[in-house]
Amino acid sequence: MAKLILEPSRGTRDFPPAEKIVRDKVISDIKEIFEIYGYSPLETPTFEKLEILEAKFGAGENSDAVSEIYRFKDQGNRELGLRYEFTFALARFVGQNPQLKTPFKRYQIGPVFRDGPIKAGRYREFYQCDIDVVGSQFGIIDAEVLAVIRDVFKKLKLETIIEVNDRKLLNEIILFCGIQEKQATDVIVAIDKLKKIGISGVKKELTERGISETDINKLLDLLTKVEKGSNKEKLSQLEKLLGETEGVKELKELFKNLETFKVEIDFNPTLARGLGYYTGPIYEVFLTDEKIMSGSLAGGGRWDKMIGKYIGNENQNIPAVGLAFGIEPIMEIIKARDGLKRQTVANLLIIPIGKATEEAIKVTQELRSKGIKVIVDLAGKGVSKNIEYADKLGIPFVGFLGEDEIKQKKIKIRDMTSGKEELTDIDKVKL
Amino acid sequence: MAKLILEPSRGTRDFPPAEKIVRDKVISDIKEIFEIYGYSPLETPTFEKLEILEAKFGAGENSDAVSEIYRFKDQGNRELGLRYEFTFALARFVGQNPQLKTPFKRYQIGPVFRDGPIKAGRYREFYQCDIDVVGSQFGIIDAEVLAVIRDVFKKLKLETIIEVNDRKLLNEIILFCGIQEKQATDVIVAIDKLKKIGISGVKKELTERGISETDINKLLDLLTKVEKGSNKEKLSQLEKLLGETEGVKELKELFKNLETFKVEIDFNPTLARGLGYYTGPIYEVFLTDEKIMSGSLAGGGRWDKMIGKYIGNENQNIPAVGLAFGIEPIMEIIKARDGLKRQTVANLLIIPIGKATEEAIKVTQELRSKGIKVIVDLAGKGVSKNIEYADKLGIPFVGFLGEDEIKQKKIKIRDMTSGKEELTDIDKVKL
Repeated sequence: MAKLILEPSRGTRDFPPAEKIVRDKVISDIKEIFEIYGYSPLETPTFEKLEILEAKFGAGENSDAVSEIYRFKDQGNRELGLRYEFTFALARFVGQNPQLKTPFKRYQIGPVFRDGPIKAGRYREFYQCDIDVVGSQFGIIDAEVLAVIRDVFKKLKLETIIEVNDRKLLNEIILFCGIQEKQATDVIVAIDKLKKIGISGVKKELTERGISETDINKLLDLLTKVEKGSNKEKLSQLEKLLGETEGVKELKELFKNLETFKVEIDFNPTLARGLGYYTGPIYEVFLTDEKIMSGSLAGGGRWDKMIGKYIGNENQNIPAVGLAFGIEPIMEIIKARDGLKRQTVANLLIIPIGKATEEAIKVTQELRSKGIKVIVDLAGKGVSKNIEYADKLGIPFVGFLGEDEIKQKKIKIRDMTSGKEELTDIDKVKL
Repeated sequence: MAKLILEPSRGTRDFPPAEKIVRDKVISDIKEIFEIYGYSPLETPTFEKLEILEAKFGAGENSDAVSEIYRFKDQGNRELGLRYEFTFALARFVGQNPQLKTPFKRYQIGPVFRDGPIKAGRYREFYQCDIDVVGSQFGIIDAEVLAVIRDVFKKLKLETIIEVNDRKLLNEIILFCGIQEKQATDVIVAIDKLKKIGISGVKKELTERGISETDINKLLDLLTKVEKGSNKEKLSQLEKLLGETEGVKELKELFKNLETFKVEIDFNPTLARGLGYYTGPIYEVFLTDEKIMSGSLAGGGRWDKMIGKYIGNENQNIPAVGLAFGIEPIMEIIKARDGLKRQTVANLLIIPIGKATEEAIKVTQELRSKGIKVIVDLAGKGVSKNIEYADKLGIPFVGFLGEDEIKQKKIKIRDMTSGKEELTDIDKVKL
């Protein structure tokens, strides 16, 4: 057998304990907030029938993701594919379970797969983390979803800005500028790139898509002119031009509801979000300090039409509001901020001195029964090798157990950070 | 577009919230015990290079699992496969990270995939849950691993029997009966089926594999004769026949160490475990009440040679002790025992009475800030529909908030099980 090249396959990664410990903590913090807001976990399979994966998108919409599906067949020659997101699986699940009580609040966190180009921070297997509420047409739920965003980033101690816009409003603005309805999606996809490619880039793209220069200038002037002022000021500027349209009304209601939830947001009329299926408020979250990371950390909105379409009834609106957190960029920021200090979950390494192994095991088991995370040296490695092990792994405390300590029912505990040692009653150890 | 058949692909399942809530609790209970024993999480990719997946097994060993790999290619035409277990990934990770400090205690929990036959309780995507210690050749770690088993099932409140044997001992018995060493693996695979196919079945299989009747009878007589008595009695019967062999010594040491850890086990000389790679103690866990489930709930052992082989150095023993818990059978038992009572994590549904929605949101947010899992009706559905929703979802408490309650800063909480109602200060709600 030729020697194997030992590595994960292209675009995938191992999460060694040091990283996985931090990752698990981030995910458990996020889950805690989700559950406080009454979102329950749903788990769907890692792969699905290919037709289910490909069904979601009409002409050209997100065709990248579909072309990036890992495809394969089972032994029964069924066409399958790895999931590339969770929304289609939610739509399938809802369609399949008409008895589901609504509002149905669910979250799903786990890996998804895209056989696409690889660059810094972009992988072929990566986590998505979604919450959605299905079956609530009331605008106030959009405000509650924004409160979840606020609380998640508060929990993670990340200072962020939540940008908000509304798809109805954006459509109204587009039509107001003389652009035809059938071109609205193209325009939205172009506007979505404003932060990345700037005004000149968007102009170029819109021109290429056949929008007239007059319309383009009108649109961009309008969108950039209302960039200043408070949220309410910006919205009333638009209202003066458009009248009290549906989009304006929807945002007014959202702003009022956000006051009830005490959530601060930033109304950004140029926020577009690429995907075609949004139907109402949309939002995106950025780190306040854009120097650290300029990409978005979460995004979502209302998508009332997709589930109906998906389950084969285009006229049935099944309202839904959803949100995805970018676990990967969030992890990058937290790793850079906090570092990866620990390679083990253990808080204490017990080092038996002399022939105390058997007694050390008994003490270890006593501490474990109290829920303390303990490793005990079973190899008789001696003090200095054990200290080195604790140091390398980032174990915060070591405990020495020799004959003297055992006789006194005590353990000598060393704080590995301060170097301070203390003789403690075994039944009083708390870590 | 033809109407989609909305269902998970063959052999896969959704875990709706009712099931996923129980599943998450079981997994978190198991993780808690793992971490108390100092095992840290490792996560490896969902798919790997096919050559990595296929490398582990020599001639005929576990060839089923290899033929059941879901195979596919990426856009760069690389051959890939979905992981079908975690051991090979641990071996790869260890081989790839020679700087790893040992003992390296890790756990991994997650889905694995096998494109095999489907029957009751057997799926194509299912969870595995492994702990392994790499780099500890000391027998006492085997006893600690058995203590983990004991504590996991105690935590899950499942009464189990841990059966223990030793591969060295089994080999010694096989040779003692006159069977040739090159046939030992065949014999072990056959003995492994004793519970399933009985003595006559094993006899038949051994005959087919060319073992003489004399040898077969000698072997089965010996294995079944020592089935009675205490662990030490059984072992000393074998010692009288074999002498103080390595296997006998290893088990003697294990029994002694198990006393230190206060772990009770059942020595079963016929326990074989199918896989070829074990080199020392082996163990398997069964429910005490075999009427509920007769299959094993966990199993493992010492496998000192595989990692060395895997990383291309057959002569390098990298000692390892490992254990896999069967999440799927454990879940079946717990579901049958406890039922699936809750379709949501929420403990409280707040029902605004009259026009109290805005105030109800404020109360909801106050309770959420204390970590209580709350849903609030934002749709003004009225009392009876809300009660029905809480009842169907299994929410244990509902809270009524009308003008009176709000004035008094109180909330009327109904226990949905007892029907009892109580007016409570909002700042004193505890659930």
